[in-house]
Amino acid sequence: MRTIRALLLEYSKRFEERSQAIVMSSRIRLARNFSQFKFPAHAEDKERGEILDFAKHYIKKLKDFKVFIDLAALTDSEQLALQERRVISKELLERRSGAGIICSDRASASIMINEEDHLRIQVINNGLQLRDAWKKINDIDNTIDDGCYAFSPSKGYLTACPSNLGTGMRASIMLHLPGLGMANQMRHLIEAVQQIGITVRGIQGEGTKALGYIYQISNQQTLGISEVDEIQRLEHIIRTIMDQEMAAREGLLKHNRTQFLDKIGRIYGMLRSCYTLTSEEAFEMLAWMRLATDCGFIDEKNRSGIDRYMVESQPGNLVVLYDKNLSAEERDTIRAENMRIFFRQIQDLQF
Amino acid sequence: MRTIRALLLEYSKRFEERSQAIVMSSRIRLARNFSQFKFPAHAEDKERGEILDFAKHYIKKLKDFKVFIDLAALTDSEQLALQERRVISKELLERRSGAGIICSDRASASIMINEEDHLRIQVINNGLQLRDAWKKINDIDNTIDDGCYAFSPSKGYLTACPSNLGTGMRASIMLHLPGLGMANQMRHLIEAVQQIGITVRGIQGEGTKALGYIYQISNQQTLGISEVDEIQRLEHIIRTIMDQEMAAREGLLKHNRTQFLDKIGRIYGMLRSCYTLTSEEAFEMLAWMRLATDCGFIDEKNRSGIDRYMVESQPGNLVVLYDKNLSAEERDTIRAENMRIFFRQIQDLQF
Repeated sequence: MRTIRALLLEYSKRFEERSQAIVMSSRIRLARNFSQFKFPAHAEDKERGEILDFAKHYIKKLKDFKVFIDLAALTDSEQLALQERRVISKELLERRSGAGIICSDRASASIMINEEDHLRIQVINNGLQLRDAWKKINDIDNTIDDGCYAFSPSKGYLTACPSNLGTGMRASIMLHLPGLGMANQMRHLIEAVQQIGITVRGIQGEGTKALGYIYQISNQQTLGISEVDEIQRLEHIIRTIMDQEMAAREGLLKHNRTQFLDKIGRIYGMLRSCYTLTSEEAFEMLAWMRLATDCGFIDEKNRSGIDRYMVESQPGNLVVLYDKNLSAEERDTIRAENMRIFFRQIQDLQF
Repeated sequence: MRTIRALLLEYSKRFEERSQAIVMSSRIRLARNFSQFKFPAHAEDKERGEILDFAKHYIKKLKDFKVFIDLAALTDSEQLALQERRVISKELLERRSGAGIICSDRASASIMINEEDHLRIQVINNGLQLRDAWKKINDIDNTIDDGCYAFSPSKGYLTACPSNLGTGMRASIMLHLPGLGMANQMRHLIEAVQQIGITVRGIQGEGTKALGYIYQISNQQTLGISEVDEIQRLEHIIRTIMDQEMAAREGLLKHNRTQFLDKIGRIYGMLRSCYTLTSEEAFEMLAWMRLATDCGFIDEKNRSGIDRYMVESQPGNLVVLYDKNLSAEERDTIRAENMRIFFRQIQDLQF
């Protein structure tokens, strides 16, 4: 099934546009339910099948959304690859009957069917592009909405979990915060933003310890606030964190310059000469190379490649993109080879 | 005092000749005492002064030995540098009164005065050149010996410690044994050779755990055997260990090839891109690059440079060769810079 491979390549195009320091991606999702069906968790298999058919019918109105993916037809690697891309969730995989995804063949937009809610619409943009993501997802939402949604004039959109009630919107920004992380300022930051309804989570890591110092920051509030206001508020908070991160980086470059250059230099050296590399190592080392790019040590033109490899080096993506079953050892070898080729074409770092 | 710096540069010339895989150096020392004086530990300051004068007078007969070094006149770094080169011992430094060194200005030969014995004559050769070292040291010894030595026809040369009685000869070979070390075969080897009077010690490390897998192997027997026989016996043992090491390396390359290449590749990558490097790190990483050269991954012409940096990167040598006081941080930075320059001129490894 080459569909998923083609889809991943299509989705990788986002790395070519608007890659920027600190903010890796802006993602918005909307939770929506059709008024005439039970929530997926309460629906029998038969009803879940009807929900799927209903959703597919409605989504036909979206002209870009041509790729319907039946979860049951996916290989383990394909499922993993889509999960790594955040196109599907673990919850969707656990709830197989009637579960599907419809993907846009142009933008990084997708809709999960029969996850926690009937529809989970999602748009992922590169860099800090929350407003653009909102515009795209709002267009999709408006095209579907002909009064079919479960909606209460007083509460807003009705969702399976009360935590989504209202806007049903969750905006998540993936941030790269090595400066704050190394300066041990993350715990303080996490506690501070928590008080204003913002959650910070490490990506591929627990609590304050995040692999590669990459964190996901998202809004919690969905009731009593408009989507646009919440996005503006979130964007304002992100810009404040970005300023703090820049200050922390300047501090590092000023007070621990040698150690900082040494760390970056050694990782660059290892990437251009390694022969086996796990996905966690690759992720963490590439995050350092992203930081090197932010600092101007690596030419800006390489940023999109670094971002792309952070996703494409993950096990599921690697197997699907290579279109071949690969053992863990083979994946580690291929990953290392990709890194050697990529980083050898980059001149020795310019400090 | 530029004398020591000039001496170190002179001594470094040995790295240009006969560098070879596995065996790093062959060193022989002779313990000798003049019959008319007490052993240094039992002599008063006055007598130690007389021993020194006597020794200097005798050594005048050796035409290459023109550099007399008064220990008291050395800076701490110079003392350390000579210790790192094994020209002087810790014991000599602790026994200051009347302590001196006379060095050959050509070969890597030197004589400590008033260490444990009146004279400790030493020759260091590169690679496995025990017989040549014996020839050189025997010439020096014969030139000095006009019947002045404390000698017993039944026992041989009399020495301060009974462990040297007889030949007074200790031959030490420095071996690089990463294959046996990684295959966990060192403990067995150490126990086996111990039973035939051979000692194995890690260099800059305790017991079986040696920094950079570098070990010093030396004879213990000095009674009831001729020097030439003992050297032949030792050389035979060394050649057996070399065979075992080569077999262990072949096993690694066959069964753990990827991990092996990865380890070597990453260290090479770090050396060409590091910005601070401690002396222990440098020593260990350079030992890996020596192994890479043995395996043909680095051109043979670089071997002498690698061997030289293993000695010249040590703190005392670095300061004396730079002819400038350097803090630990400055040393780490200079060391890293040297490595970057040296390893960037080497093409990416050829596997």
